[in-house]
This record gives sequence, structure tokens and C-alpha cells, in this order.
Amino acid sequence: MNSAEDRLVQRIAAAMKPMGLQGLLRLGLGDDAALWSPRPGYETVLTCDWFLEGSHFLRDKHPPDSVGWKCLARAVSDIAAMGGQPRCFLLSLALPRTHTRRWLDRFLAGLRRAARRFGCQLAGGDTTQRDEILINIAVIGEVLAGKAILRSGAKPGDLIFVTGRLGEAEFGLRSLRGRTPSGPDNLSIKKHLYPEPRLALGQWLAKKRFATSMMDLSDGLSTDLPRLCAASRVGACIDARKIPSVGPAEGSVLNEANRLALALNGGDDYELLFTVHPSQARRIPRVLQEIPLTSIGEITRDREIHLLQAGGRKKTLIPGGWDPFRR
Amino acid sequence: MNSAEDRLVQRIAAAMKPMGLQGLLRLGLGDDAALWSPRPGYETVLTCDWFLEGSHFLRDKHPPDSVGWKCLARAVSDIAAMGGQPRCFLLSLALPRTHTRRWLDRFLAGLRRAARRFGCQLAGGDTTQRDEILINIAVIGEVLAGKAILRSGAKPGDLIFVTGRLGEAEFGLRSLRGRTPSGPDNLSIKKHLYPEPRLALGQWLAKKRFATSMMDLSDGLSTDLPRLCAASRVGACIDARKIPSVGPAEGSVLNEANRLALALNGGDDYELLFTVHPSQARRIPRVLQEIPLTSIGEITRDREIHLLQAGGRKKTLIPGGWDPFRR
Repeated sequence: MNSAEDRLVQRIAAAMKPMGLQGLLRLGLGDDAALWSPRPGYETVLTCDWFLEGSHFLRDKHPPDSVGWKCLARAVSDIAAMGGQPRCFLLSLALPRTHTRRWLDRFLAGLRRAARRFGCQLAGGDTTQRDEILINIAVIGEVLAGKAILRSGAKPGDLIFVTGRLGEAEFGLRSLRGRTPSGPDNLSIKKHLYPEPRLALGQWLAKKRFATSMMDLSDGLSTDLPRLCAASRVGACIDARKIPSVGPAEGSVLNEANRLALALNGGDDYELLFTVHPSQARRIPRVLQEIPLTSIGEITRDREIHLLQAGGRKKTLIPGGWDPFRR
Repeated sequence: MNSAEDRLVQRIAAAMKPMGLQGLLRLGLGDDAALWSPRPGYETVLTCDWFLEGSHFLRDKHPPDSVGWKCLARAVSDIAAMGGQPRCFLLSLALPRTHTRRWLDRFLAGLRRAARRFGCQLAGGDTTQRDEILINIAVIGEVLAGKAILRSGAKPGDLIFVTGRLGEAEFGLRSLRGRTPSGPDNLSIKKHLYPEPRLALGQWLAKKRFATSMMDLSDGLSTDLPRLCAASRVGACIDARKIPSVGPAEGSVLNEANRLALALNGGDDYELLFTVHPSQARRIPRVLQEIPLTSIGEITRDREIHLLQAGGRKKTLIPGGWDPFRR
């Protein structure tokens, strides 16, 4: 004699069969709470993220399996940004009754694919009924004790690096929405729908102690860089000409200014922003695991954030990224 | 140069100043993720819970400080149900722009009061803007390694106990909504607005190893008891005459049948349901820390759930508690 909610939970549990966490996760779905112990020598890393219809995805534009993939990927990206390894997650899901079968199955297929890719197993959650699709993901990960990379460690003189190319996900979203004439934009759309958190890179930087500070780029460089600087009580000067942006093949419809604006203000890239002491900078390769690592500027003592423009003029960088509370 | 979202996070952080977790929580708000280690000899317990306007509370009926208290209390109750101690939590909050000041301040006052009461510190979270108030809480707790009480341990012959009086919170909700002529119902309303998770009782039961299985009553006995039985692969027979219900002083407007229906189907009580081997039953006092502990029936080998009625007739217990997916 199961309730409809219990049947839904069983449906989710069946789709997300355990992947074998070797005893770290002693108890998953089906109890009041999950039991977890990190491996000896590791700390636990905890983070959570909203993924809400209308705010973070659109029911009619985003395939359900992308919603499943991305809700986990963006939460996992916060673990990558600490240099950690995700291990399990809690899924809070509110669904319309009309979405508890076909939509849910496709959502779970994307979620399962992401869970396998990131090595992150479903450990529990909460489900309820709602007219809109609401998702919240809490991720539990591990990081070598004392080796987590915080936002607060940047020092004046440190070089500022980013992974990948910035603005691609925003460009992909615009293509998806049809606001930009679509060229050969499949890569950007793919980056928007199925982002790849930089887990291996984050762990490499933590293990080698190369990064003095790190965060992930979720709201856009112009919004996130000031956050890193505020946490470290420093400023920054970045060089517009060095910022890696949407490639010319992809973004052939974009001029230089558009490309820069996308790279500065586009959200959802889930690339890493990190700083490196100048003495270590030569140990950062230009490409690692096929992902470009690009030095874009320097941490400064004054608490200002500056952008060095193509013509050589400096201007204050205005946060223009994603801010849900801005009118 | 802070974004509006950053200012909101600062407002939350200022209201929820750290309470001193003695190094267990190494890093709270203000980074990508929180760092956590349980004390030696303890496992980590993880749970999460929705608390959504319209589904779980009403903007015009529930005082903001009750929303703050209750969103944490109900998640913490899942930790109590494992025999654990909550330690920190992640707060995911979606708010209308109109609610980022006065409403938020009162909400945070209730949340802070609950956090202090339960010894559970804000460790991080996520905020966004939304027309409706959406809350999700993930709680991180500790339990003595190997001593967590699961739902799955009940054996035929075990006695079934509940803490407190059942149906009080539902009665309080009805009084609040004005659907029941209000008698001296302040206690019930208080239980609905400011539930007290049975933390000390849960930990006592775990430490003493008295309970063979346990869960918290959030959706109503008639819905939750079948869940415990399903997890343990057993059945149950409970005695209607033994189930502690809304007291006669409080519920003077209720007849016996109403009182029983409330006790069976009323949600939101956050009392504990647990089972005890018959040889240990005499070690369970009738009252502990002013909370009644009542034996209401027995676990059975057959997989049925029965209710022994006042007249001595047995009937199958039909789940009539809260189920968001029931039409």
C-alpha cells in the first residue's frame, strides 16, 4: 500500500541504481537521511544549487535530459572549484503531475549520465507536487584535508587564469532562443545544455598547490571576479585582449566587441577562475587535457577591478553578469 | 561593487553569525562550498527538505519567523529520526523582491532561533529571485558510527512506540485556517508553527540501542507506519485506543472519531515512530523529558497494516496522510 509519492521515489531510485561507493555511502534512498563518511585524510565538501523552471531553464526550450544533466553539473562545478571530488548528492524535485512519467524518465536519463560521468551517486532527497518544475541539488564531495582551494587566498602580484573559452554557454543560449542568427553553433549550444565541470583540472590544481585561490564562473567573469577579489581583499586588472572568447568559427556572426561582452558577462560557463603565484606561473601549461588555461591579468593591491582595453586604456569593470535581484 | 544578490547573502550571513562549531565546520558562507569533518567516531548524516509557499506554508497565515523556524525544524527532524545531532545546514532561498527586507529579517530571526536551539549552524546556500517564496534546507549532522537507527530494523514481535500526541499540528493548522471553532488551541497552533524535533529522545534511543527501527512522523501515522513496515519487510497492528491524540482540553470541540482521524492522518507532527524488542520494552519510560512515550501496537510477520478498533474489530489501515501526488 504505497502512496503516489512513494511510487515516484521508487521510480527515481530504480533509474539511479547505485554505482558502488565502496562503503563511503552507507545508506542511500529509502530512509530519513543518508549516512556518509569521507575516506581517511579527506574533508567533506558541501554545496547546493537551485535549478528552477523559468529562472534557470525553460520547459519548452531545454530537453529534459539536459535539465537532468545540468542541474547536477552546475552544483558539481562548485566542488570542482574547491579542488574536490563529488561523491554523492541529494535531489529535491517538485514536479507537475503531468511530468511524473515521460518527462521524468528523460530527466532521470540525463541525471544518471551526469552522475556516472562525475562519479556522484544519488543518496536521498525530497519530492513534492507543484505546477512548475523546481529542482534543488545538494552535492557532497571530498577534498584532501587542508588542500581545498578557497576564494580568499589571492595575493597582489598573483596571475589570474581562466579555463576554456568564456561566453560560449551564453552564446549557446542565445542560439537556442533564436536571438542570434545561428551559424555552426552546435558546440556552444552543447556547452549551454551539457556543461562539463572542470573536475580533473580543479583536483590537479589543488593537489599540486598551484592555485592560491579559485572559484567557478557561473554568473559571468565581470560578476564573479569581483567576488573572488572581495573574498581575498584585493583588486585585479585583466586584459581584454587576453580573455579567451567564443571562437571565430563558432561566433562568425559576432564582432570583437560582442565577443568580449559575452566573455565578460555571459553566465553558465562553469569554467574555473584561479590565481597563481608568479613563481609558479610557468608550471601552468597552456593546454591541459585539451582545455586551454589562459592568463588574463594580475591581482592588484588596490581594491579596484580594472579592464585594460584593446587601445591600452584602463576602465573600471562593471559587473554585468547574471544577478537575479537586479531590476 | 557588489551585486544585489551578494548584498542579500551578506544580509543573511550577518543575521546568522557563527555559533562556534570548534573547527568541525572549517568554512561557511562566502565560498563555493563548505568544508566539514565529523568528530572522530562519528558518521555524517545528510538530509534535505522542501518548504514551499502554497504547499507547505501560506504567506498570509504563517508568520515569517515561523517559516524560518519550521523550515529548519522539519529537516532537522530527519536527523533526529536517525538518532543523530544536527551540526550545520545549507539554505536555498528564492524570494520575491518585495520580501528581501522586512519579511526576510523576520524569517531570519525565526531561523536563527531554531539554529541556536538545534545547535545547527548556517554553512552555505544559494539565493535567487522568484515570485513565490521557495525554501530548501539540507542538514548535515553527526551520529555515533554504527549507531544510526534505520527504518529497516523492525522485527515481528517488536513493540511500536510513538512520542508525544499525534494530530496536534494538523489541529493547529485547522485552527489557524479557521476551519475548526477555536477553543483554547494555542498549544496546537504553536506545535504547527514551531515544531520541536525530538533530538534528545532520538539520540537517547540510539545511544542506548533501545530502538530497532525509527522514523519521524511528518506525513501522518497512517502513511508513515507503512513506510517503516515496507523498509523492514514486516506488517503492524496498532490499537486505536492506545494512540495518543489531541488532549481533551485542547480538542474539546472534537469527538473521539475526529481525534482518532487526526492522530492517524494529520501531518507535520515531527514526533518519532520507533520499534523496541519486547525484552527491552520495560526500559522505555512512559514519559521522558516531559514527552510521553506510548506503546501503540506490535510489528507482525504478515505484511499487512491493521488497526484494532475500539470495539475490538480489526481493519486494514488506509494511508490517509499527506501525499502531494494524490488527486
